[in-house]
Formats: sequence, C-alpha cells, structure tokens
Amino acid sequence: MAYNIVSLSELTAQFERLPGIGKKTAQRLAFHVITSDEAYAKRFAAALLDAKAKIHLCKNCYSLTDNEICSVCADSSRDKSIICVVGDPKDVLAFERTREYKGVYHVLHGVISPLDGVGPEKLKIKELIARLSDSGVKEIIMATDPTVEGEATASYISRFIKPMGIKITRLAYGVPVGGNLEYADEVTLKAALDGRNEI
Amino acid sequence: MAYNIVSLSELTAQFERLPGIGKKTAQRLAFHVITSDEAYAKRFAAALLDAKAKIHLCKNCYSLTDNEICSVCADSSRDKSIICVVGDPKDVLAFERTREYKGVYHVLHGVISPLDGVGPEKLKIKELIARLSDSGVKEIIMATDPTVEGEATASYISRFIKPMGIKITRLAYGVPVGGNLEYADEVTLKAALDGRNEI
Repeated sequence: MAYNIVSLSELTAQFERLPGIGKKTAQRLAFHVITSDEAYAKRFAAALLDAKAKIHLCKNCYSLTDNEICSVCADSSRDKSIICVVGDPKDVLAFERTREYKGVYHVLHGVISPLDGVGPEKLKIKELIARLSDSGVKEIIMATDPTVEGEATASYISRFIKPMGIKITRLAYGVPVGGNLEYADEVTLKAALDGRNEI
Repeated sequence: MAYNIVSLSELTAQFERLPGIGKKTAQRLAFHVITSDEAYAKRFAAALLDAKAKIHLCKNCYSLTDNEICSVCADSSRDKSIICVVGDPKDVLAFERTREYKGVYHVLHGVISPLDGVGPEKLKIKELIARLSDSGVKEIIMATDPTVEGEATASYISRFIKPMGIKITRLAYGVPVGGNLEYADEVTLKAALDGRNEI
C-alpha cells in the first residue's frame, strides 16, 4: 500500500495484541493517541512501564501488589482463618467490590486445563497447601470460575485439603441478582432450584 | 477501598481515556499488560512515544505522515489535479483501502460544528483555498461525512471554490454494498432512489 507509516503500524500492532481489540479498533485507538496532545502519549507510556515495573505477586497470596505483601494480607483487620481461592488476580478485585468479604485470598493463576497444557503443577497449589500447614486456617472457599475447568480444579484441590480437617465450601450456584429468568440457561436454573431456600 | 494499587489505577485510567473503552475494559487491558511479559509493556510504551514523536501533518495535504510530505503527495504517479477533501486523517486510510482512487487528498481536521465551538477558521479550509490558487486542480471531491455537519462543511467550502471555476463533486449517496435493505434508513433509501442509474 502506498500510504504506510511505520510508527503508526507499529502502534496499531501493539494495541491489536490486547484482548478483544481487533484491527479496526486498534487503528482507531492509535489515531486517537497520535491526534491527542503529547502529554497523553507520554503519560500512557510512563504508566505502562511503571505498572509493569512496580506490580508483582504478593509473597503470601499471589495476588497483584506493589509492595512485598498485598494490602489485604497486610490488613490486620482481615480474618486470616478464611481463605478464598480464586483463579485470576482480577477475581480478587471482584470480591473486594462486594465490600462484604473480610477474609483473605489465594490466587492460583489459572485453572487445571489439560487441553491448554495447564497441569496442577503450573498453578499456585503447593503454595496454598504450604499456607495451610503452618497457621490456623478454618475455612477454604473454593471460588474458581463456575466452568468445567474451574470445577475440576476445585475438586482436585479439595482432595488435598479434606484430610487436613479444614472446612471447604464452594460458591452458591443460582440465578444472577437483577438478571432475567428468561435468559438463564437450564443448568443454572436447575442449580437455583436445587439450592432453593425457605423464605 | 482496601485493595488499591496506585500504578494499576493509573494504567487503568490511561486506557479509560481511549475512545470506546469503559472502566471494566480498561481494567481488563491493564491486567493483561501487567500479566504479560515485560517486553510487551516496553515495546508498547516505545511505540506510543515513537508514533507521537515521529508522526505529524503533511505540509501539503495535512494527512498524517512521518516525513515532510506524505507518501501520497510524494508519489509522482498520483493525479494532482483531483483533490479529495476529507474531515479526518482516518478517512484517507479508508479511501486508500479501495485501491481505486488515484488523486490526492486534503484533510480538514474536523467539520464545521457551531454547537461544539468548531467554526470554519479552526479547519484547514484556507490551506485548501491556497492549494487551489497556484496549481492546475481540475476537480474537488467533497468527501466529508454524510452527516448534517459534513454536509454544511461541504457546501460552505463549495461557495469559495465555485467562483474559481473548479469542478466540485460530492460522494454518491445510496445503500451500502453488501448491506441489507431492511436496515437502511428512509433518508438513505430515498437518496438511493433519487440517484438510481439505468442498468
């Protein structure tokens, strides 16, 4: 093509590597940066490098933090006897948004998925077991995604923890609050029926 | 909120400033960058700074370029007697993708929009008039967006060019190729009827 600007193509390519961003959107975003003031590009670039340089995994629960241990683990008011086990660092933020959960977390960084070549040894499972051995943990909430892989991961881990005499719970299944019954799939609806409570 | 990482919030904020990127998407993109390898963040940051530093407006047609004049203006095989007037640098890319247009461009960098405080003086209109006075331009294709503002801009500019004896054309209106008549709005459909051609 006659009209080709190397640095524009390169920026478009970087945007295109982001999840859910296609070729056209990537081009639109690149044009936006180029036609915005220079301060924006500089601040954006600095934010990318800064976040990548400062953020790493919490030594205790493997969620993201810019300190040695994350703010949840460091918070003395959190109940260390309850550990919520999630697959992804993003899930921690989702639980924190509820402002209800007062326990701590453990991030597995994935779920067991043989098809994708992810075996248990690639997840932070032995690190979870190690956390359980030394302290007074009373309950483990298995909060991996409600998918086949998430379920398999939860039951795999449960097998190790059950013998330790620690209570293991799983998130409740049911219809989403504010959702529309019409759009609920039959498996979810069956789970909601099975788990029905007296009012 | 207990769980707050400053550099993560800052990166999320920068993503959120992009057009069409909401809070949740911005967070997802920020997490993606943080959990990707370091080389990606570095390359992305470099691409942002590089594109912003190198790309500026073509001195002749005001499209984007990393040279003094853009590759279209610099191409001796392009017909300099036809100028396609567009509102946005992105529109040049859209025309170039057709691989049909062999003339050159002029980018206005906006359309007249009194409600947004954009008057004719903020657009590259006098630069267009200047281009016409010194060379043998035979035709101006008004290719501003088919919106109220785009139309107003096209007719505003036409008033200056008509007295110069230069042919002025406007893009044809009609139903989009590959589109579905069912979804065509009545104004477009009327325009397609009015502009019908014998087959």
